[in-house]
Amino acid sequence: MIDYSAIRTIGFDADDTLWVNETYFRETEDKFAALLQEFETKNKIDNELFAKEMENLALYGYGVKGFMLSMLETAIELSSGQVNSQTLSKIIGMGKEMIEKPVELLDGVEEVLQYLAPNYRLIVMTKGDLLDQERKLQKSGLSKYFQHVEVLSDKKEKNYSDLLMHLQIEVDEFVMIGNSLKSDVLPLLNIGSKAIHIPFHTTWAHEEVSEKEIDKDHHYLKIEGLTQLKALF
Amino acid sequence: MIDYSAIRTIGFDADDTLWVNETYFRETEDKFAALLQEFETKNKIDNELFAKEMENLALYGYGVKGFMLSMLETAIELSSGQVNSQTLSKIIGMGKEMIEKPVELLDGVEEVLQYLAPNYRLIVMTKGDLLDQERKLQKSGLSKYFQHVEVLSDKKEKNYSDLLMHLQIEVDEFVMIGNSLKSDVLPLLNIGSKAIHIPFHTTWAHEEVSEKEIDKDHHYLKIEGLTQLKALF
Repeated sequence: MIDYSAIRTIGFDADDTLWVNETYFRETEDKFAALLQEFETKNKIDNELFAKEMENLALYGYGVKGFMLSMLETAIELSSGQVNSQTLSKIIGMGKEMIEKPVELLDGVEEVLQYLAPNYRLIVMTKGDLLDQERKLQKSGLSKYFQHVEVLSDKKEKNYSDLLMHLQIEVDEFVMIGNSLKSDVLPLLNIGSKAIHIPFHTTWAHEEVSEKEIDKDHHYLKIEGLTQLKALF
Repeated sequence: MIDYSAIRTIGFDADDTLWVNETYFRETEDKFAALLQEFETKNKIDNELFAKEMENLALYGYGVKGFMLSMLETAIELSSGQVNSQTLSKIIGMGKEMIEKPVELLDGVEEVLQYLAPNYRLIVMTKGDLLDQERKLQKSGLSKYFQHVEVLSDKKEKNYSDLLMHLQIEVDEFVMIGNSLKSDVLPLLNIGSKAIHIPFHTTWAHEEVSEKEIDKDHHYLKIEGLTQLKALF
């Protein structure tokens, strides 16, 4: 039994915790592979794109623009320069479409935030592109529930501990809610905070961790959906 | 005579105020035009690229990745799809080179920060890509002088007033230092703070404001270089 009675601040991840995100990347990857099917198999294209994203991650960081640039580079390389510029234009168009997508809230988000807001300080801690995340929050209509929104360039232990210090939040009074064990759960447990995992049906390979990376002494709760938070807080 | 005696916090813009930035964009624009010289004149290419950047600004925001995507789109459109993928790869490479550039500090930066740090709260307020700006600050070796670093998606009045409130800075105890009248001076004067303008020899057309946009009642100081701050504070 994990005791949440000391918690005063609740941090929420955004993509795939408050709203759908990964699904759109998968849909775009499928369209990307279809565009290039004359050059390679779907499996090979998926693998090459992921490898390119990993190669570029330190340079581009997270977000749609870096994903667009990695798709363009992959298309040129996979086709040995044979891909035509119409196809490359389509790839740019697919990325723009992702940026302009309406925000689709996950089940129970508004209900849970309404329930928690009077008694807790709620904050958003998300990584990715600054403008993109600000725009999604704006479109979501959820801004009014959050006392602070922070877009981080990464979600490692140091990013979290620096931010908690800046916001004057005690580590043992903080719980993070998110869909990624790697980004939303493990770093928090390592700095002495709590975390609750809500898996999303789709996880980007980069966010996956093996069971053995999760120290058995680490206690966190895994729940099926946001509405279960109402039973805990 | 402007009175700075109430000032407790000094905000610094980063690009072209602490370190060189616009110069690298200009150099890349020149290489871009040279790559496409078989299709159009330099003047036409410059204009088309700037128009594309403005078209994409709301979607991409500021930063190198958006600039790379705008260059790629412009190359395809200007050449009516005739540009080959080798040229597009070169454009991607030029963008990556910009991201990896070493940071070149402007004259007197370190001396001035050292002088001011003991008596003022110094913060960085920059717009652009989050990861890019964090990396530049890291490379600059200047982090130790700043109590806070904020990367903003834009530098309008609301961005500044929200941030000053969040950092609990009184508007009349704040002065902003920067090279852009549009982004670093006017919005601050409009919210009741002070601002000091240090022009950089190169200004992006998007940051230019006409003299008549500057209300005659607005008082701000224009200085030639950072070291002049030592005479004011």
